[in-house]
Amino acid sequence: MSAVSPEERETTRMEAFSDGVFAIAMTLLVLDLRDPAIGPGVSLSEGLVTEWPAIFALVTSFVTILIMWMNHHNMFNYIRRIDRRLMFFNGLLLLFVVLTPFTTGVVADHILDGYAGTAAAIYAGTFLIMSIVWNGLWRYSSRGHRLLGGDVTDEQVTTITKQYYVAPVVYAAALGVSIISGLASVVIILLVAAFYGVTATLGK
Amino acid sequence: MSAVSPEERETTRMEAFSDGVFAIAMTLLVLDLRDPAIGPGVSLSEGLVTEWPAIFALVTSFVTILIMWMNHHNMFNYIRRIDRRLMFFNGLLLLFVVLTPFTTGVVADHILDGYAGTAAAIYAGTFLIMSIVWNGLWRYSSRGHRLLGGDVTDEQVTTITKQYYVAPVVYAAALGVSIISGLASVVIILLVAAFYGVTATLGK
Amino acid sequence: MSAVSPEERETTRMEAFSDGVFAIAMTLLVLDLRDPAIGPGVSLSEGLVTEWPAIFALVTSFVTILIMWMNHHNMFNYIRRIDRRLMFFNGLLLLFVVLTPFTTGVVADHILDGYAGTAAAIYAGTFLIMSIVWNGLWRYSSRGHRLLGGDVTDEQVTTITKQYYVAPVVYAAALGVSIISGLASVVIILLVAAFYGVTATLGK
Amino acid sequence: MSAVSPEERETTRMEAFSDGVFAIAMTLLVLDLRDPAIGPGVSLSEGLVTEWPAIFALVTSFVTILIMWMNHHNMFNYIRRIDRRLMFFNGLLLLFVVLTPFTTGVVADHILDGYAGTAAAIYAGTFLIMSIVWNGLWRYSSRGHRLLGGDVTDEQVTTITKQYYVAPVVYAAALGVSIISGLASVVIILLVAAFYGVTATLGK
Repeated sequence: MSAVSPEERETTRMEAFSDGVFAIAMTLLVLDLRDPAIGPGVSLSEGLVTEWPAIFALVTSFVTILIMWMNHHNMFNYIRRIDRRLMFFNGLLLLFVVLTPFTTGVVADHILDGYAGTAAAIYAGTFLIMSIVWNGLWRYSSRGHRLLGGDVTDEQVTTITKQYYVAPVVYAAALGVSIISGLASVVIILLVAAFYGVTATLGK
Repeated sequence: MSAVSPEERETTRMEAFSDGVFAIAMTLLVLDLRDPAIGPGVSLSEGLVTEWPAIFALVTSFVTILIMWMNHHNMFNYIRRIDRRLMFFNGLLLLFVVLTPFTTGVVADHILDGYAGTAAAIYAGTFLIMSIVWNGLWRYSSRGHRLLGGDVTDEQVTTITKQYYVAPVVYAAALGVSIISGLASVVIILLVAAFYGVTATLGK
Repeated sequence: MSAVSPEERETTRMEAFSDGVFAIAMTLLVLDLRDPAIGPGVSLSEGLVTEWPAIFALVTSFVTILIMWMNHHNMFNYIRRIDRRLMFFNGLLLLFVVLTPFTTGVVADHILDGYAGTAAAIYAGTFLIMSIVWNGLWRYSSRGHRLLGGDVTDEQVTTITKQYYVAPVVYAAALGVSIISGLASVVIILLVAAFYGVTATLGK
Repeated sequence: MSAVSPEERETTRMEAFSDGVFAIAMTLLVLDLRDPAIGPGVSLSEGLVTEWPAIFALVTSFVTILIMWMNHHNMFNYIRRIDRRLMFFNGLLLLFVVLTPFTTGVVADHILDGYAGTAAAIYAGTFLIMSIVWNGLWRYSSRGHRLLGGDVTDEQVTTITKQYYVAPVVYAAALGVSIISGLASVVIILLVAAFYGVTATLGK
């Protein structure tokens, strides 16, 4: 006879599975960091400097996925039960988490060349779809308090719903801006990430 | 003195271990997504288009493994104890989970060339063996309610047993079809995955 | 106030950490399976046949690590407390788990060429050291029931201690045999793995 | 109704997530171990000898990360609650854990060539920043017992705070020494790791 309810156990298992995907996605980019090629006239420090896109991509996507993880963690302080639809939506969300190192790498490689616009469009577009899935997952779970913990208030739900609205709007704007300037588009996205990082860090 | 029974603890550990394998297998394919080669006359968008087999393989095998994970998760709502035989069978199952990214990649590379039949046969054959292992695991666990939770009814067991029968039959058919048309064979398999996705998502 | 004792919590965390390493080590070898090179006069099936060492290495090391995991899992049914020395010994054990895909790959590549003896010596030597670490870990934990659960009997300890003795003896023998025949040495090792697989699967 | 408090659950989830990152970072380096190239006049043993930097890097960074994990584990015997700032600091710490295989690999490749100083500076510098983050995390958690368990004494806090002071001082010294001798700098760092390994292993 266990003191842990089946619902609690189920939710915990899904969190642990999600955490595994987050942890792996955060770690894989280190495989792109290689001992830089050095040769006649190229020192180790110079070699490392040419690796800056890989280092920038690692740090950026590590921090981006960390912030997603923190928000995922926070969301599951409210969602305390799961059903099969939630499992599927959560899986879709993780697919986009897994794509983040790839899209970040494309941006790091091309943000300063002629393909900055295309790279930024891919980056913004992927985040846009992910933010829509995220909102869908939250709306599904919170409608009529379907999967929420018993102590969650309507006011809390409304606050979070509003907070989550910001992302798709800004990512859609960033996607539009990418037509004009890839660099500006990426800067907007990183600012949104910083905003969510700050709210996730400073929120109560 | 713990409130968690040893049986519960054991089962939870095996679930967590399985989840780790699922999570890694789902994530590894992102390593095949590389910044596409671009050069004179090849733009970034054109380069990405030539990567479609890798992207298709990532999404397909991510969703396929996600559905397997959901079904694994559901099955372990009924199986609430483990023994050493189950641990071994479960490990065999995970071996085929781990092979999924590879077989999916082979299909994505060859579905439109002269080797579509061979690729589809490998794909169907691997899923066929896996579905047999899956059925064996369930039969072993459910016979005489050997490893099931105390509250599982005979009717539930029968329903699941019937549901699991579908897979090996269809995979055997897909294996046969691959002799005639690789593409048709793969379409059948993806439809089965969708069927299990829908039952896993919509089932009670 | 939690119903889970701190000792229980600590042990669970070390198990989960170990499981992560086991799961990753089992999964990584799939990265060596690549869509085989095909060209004029080389069909997909022929290409796959030339990949047999990679496939053999994946299956062999997957099953080997699975059996180690099962034995690790069984051992921690007896060891119910941890201290810092155990954490370090367990870490050393995991280092050899992580090396298994590499040593298995070397064997698969060379078992049929002139370096079979060297490859088998590396394989046997690594397993020999690992089995010594494993025995050391068990002796440390079981001496005076230092870290065992309260319900473990002296008889159980003696049975397991004897069972664990087998491995270093056989691996030392396999290391010796590798001087004469690499293939014979590897066959011995795989038979020991099968023996542990059977005892782990059929034992009570 | 669960017997596990929400605070306990939250802390456990962050520990599990961290463990995932530790486990993956420890395991990834095995991907750098490849069956060595052999050819006319190069035997398998000779080929393996030329791989010593990769093997040295694997073992060194495996043990280094293992020791970090043990210290992380020990620290979270005292920290029993988390907040969002701690989640972010902990994430930053993990970023440096993930970088360890890369920096260790650079050192292994260059410690005996003309770039030993640069490699050692990168190695020492990364550890210096990490040790500062580590101290920051501990100071934040322990100030006024903000996030500590109820049974932690002031004396314990003081002891740990002093112990953690050692690292940044020594890494700063190692960074200075790297200007004169890369090898000496790396030796200092490995001695510090050994010191922490011994205190983590032998401490009460």
